[in-house]
Amino acid sequence: MKLLITGGAGFVGTRLAQALLARGTLAGRRIETLVLADQVAPRAELLADPRVKARTGALLAQCAALRDEPFDGVFHLASAVSGECEADFELGLRSNLDSTRALFDALRATVQHGAPVPRLVFSSSVAVFGPDAAVPLPPRVADDTLPAPQTSYGTHKLMCEYLLADYSRKGFIDGRAARLMTVTVRPGRPNGAASSFFSGIIREPLAGDEAVCPVSANVCHPVASPARTVEGLIAVYEASREAFHGRLAMNLPALNVCVGQMLDALEEVAGRAVRERVRFESDERIAGIVANWPKAADAARAARLGLKPDGSFTDIVRQYIADCEAAPDGAAALKGLAR
Amino acid sequence: MKLLITGGAGFVGTRLAQALLARGTLAGRRIETLVLADQVAPRAELLADPRVKARTGALLAQCAALRDEPFDGVFHLASAVSGECEADFELGLRSNLDSTRALFDALRATVQHGAPVPRLVFSSSVAVFGPDAAVPLPPRVADDTLPAPQTSYGTHKLMCEYLLADYSRKGFIDGRAARLMTVTVRPGRPNGAASSFFSGIIREPLAGDEAVCPVSANVCHPVASPARTVEGLIAVYEASREAFHGRLAMNLPALNVCVGQMLDALEEVAGRAVRERVRFESDERIAGIVANWPKAADAARAARLGLKPDGSFTDIVRQYIADCEAAPDGAAALKGLAR
Repeated sequence: MKLLITGGAGFVGTRLAQALLARGTLAGRRIETLVLADQVAPRAELLADPRVKARTGALLAQCAALRDEPFDGVFHLASAVSGECEADFELGLRSNLDSTRALFDALRATVQHGAPVPRLVFSSSVAVFGPDAAVPLPPRVADDTLPAPQTSYGTHKLMCEYLLADYSRKGFIDGRAARLMTVTVRPGRPNGAASSFFSGIIREPLAGDEAVCPVSANVCHPVASPARTVEGLIAVYEASREAFHGRLAMNLPALNVCVGQMLDALEEVAGRAVRERVRFESDERIAGIVANWPKAADAARAARLGLKPDGSFTDIVRQYIADCEAAPDGAAALKGLAR
Repeated sequence: MKLLITGGAGFVGTRLAQALLARGTLAGRRIETLVLADQVAPRAELLADPRVKARTGALLAQCAALRDEPFDGVFHLASAVSGECEADFELGLRSNLDSTRALFDALRATVQHGAPVPRLVFSSSVAVFGPDAAVPLPPRVADDTLPAPQTSYGTHKLMCEYLLADYSRKGFIDGRAARLMTVTVRPGRPNGAASSFFSGIIREPLAGDEAVCPVSANVCHPVASPARTVEGLIAVYEASREAFHGRLAMNLPALNVCVGQMLDALEEVAGRAVRERVRFESDERIAGIVANWPKAADAARAARLGLKPDGSFTDIVRQYIADCEAAPDGAAALKGLAR
């Protein structure tokens, strides 16, 4: 089979590509070709796999060519992040709405030219949910909580969920939307996401650097490890259409934690000195965005697919450390850790 | 003030234009200019009013010019109807999604060039609601029922509700979405809407013609008269932003009736012979679409704006007859009515 991952050189996309290549099959079929489309090239070790092809450039510009190239399956992860979309409204529209529409239309064109209907997993987000004065958020947002996004990012993700449902109803794609929780711990540098600090307050102290936490310790949030997130995307791909019961969007499992619990877990795994590298300094812009996010999430439908949240935040911290230890360039990421 | 009505030569648009011109003011301001944009020219009697300007052509093509023309207020009614969108997927995307986006972007451009933020009422639809196996529809859909559109028409309306909320949040428009119930009795010829028969089974017998009802007498549906619909659009325009409590979409009031009750009302007003011109002949395509629509609707938030549904379906039939009697060319529409 021939697969496409958009955002295939990104953090989740790279992990997903590694997992798929290691499995070798998806939904019972052998993976012959894995196309990684992204604005930047994939990692060298992925490119070294003969099954991998890279397509580098803006997704929107790539979609015209995709009209003549059928795929058996697609993971659509490419996205501008929430902070970027708040700062640049047109970038958000282009990257998250227009590109998704263009991708769906390219796949529709292949089907209308006789290709089999491709299966597509769209990475939506817990950011589709938000409070409003008319309908307060429940303590835990559920699969069927009424969405009310409070960011352009969440708005576009939600619009694309509905677009996906309509293209699927018409038989142009076999679409499913998985609402990702905030993925943590992300390696590397902070990105433009307002949620970036949920990784930063663990990652920077482990690297020996100071970290600023822009919200208070009692801010709670649904998170998931990279491994659980990739597992969720694959399970949503492999699920039967019937498992969706006509509603194609579902929450992925969340570990519901507060910032203070995250830091307690960091201390438990890495020691008090590491934790003390985190300094609280309120940032009104970030705190304002985060205040409008769900404090916790439920994922009843994902549970019926056998998916489980991470067991604890200490598990997540340990997973991050193990990943760094396994990476060729991972030592620098752990130089704050006393051995 | 300068107002724009898109779809301003359509059935609801024409009625709205007449109502606004008769009032002379909106939200306490004098209406100086009323631009009616539509694919066809407005009625001659509207064009005769010196305040009225017509813009004829596809809305999407008109939007580039609108970037340089600020408006104080907009009623965005232009839309392809449900049956058209099911038959021609690209027409639906273009007419209902791309045109709305282009209109919002044109208004955003005027604001970014210094114009005051325009107020905009978007005509959404009860078609945003639909059943799914995971979350059955409640007996009456409410303002905060989770939407699950089962048509492209309803999908695009819902996507535009969320787009409107985001443009409003960013301060590019002061948007509000009024979910119209099925407007009946529409004069003229059947249109491509799957709901067209809800007018046809009243209009054709009154004109002396046979009518086919494609669904059974026990099919129930939320409807509203043209007068109540126009009243609702104006009230939503005039409401304070605070009345929306952060959620910008609301149902307009519905009279919840079944087809059998509609025909009973027709008989009560016009006699048995008129009713007997309606023949039941099941149409699977129409019945399939209608089966996925709400059977009834609530409009608690519109009620708080003082809006009320029609009192009864006999009121609606009488209103239609009175409208025909008042129209210069209305006699033909009532030639089935014994006097």
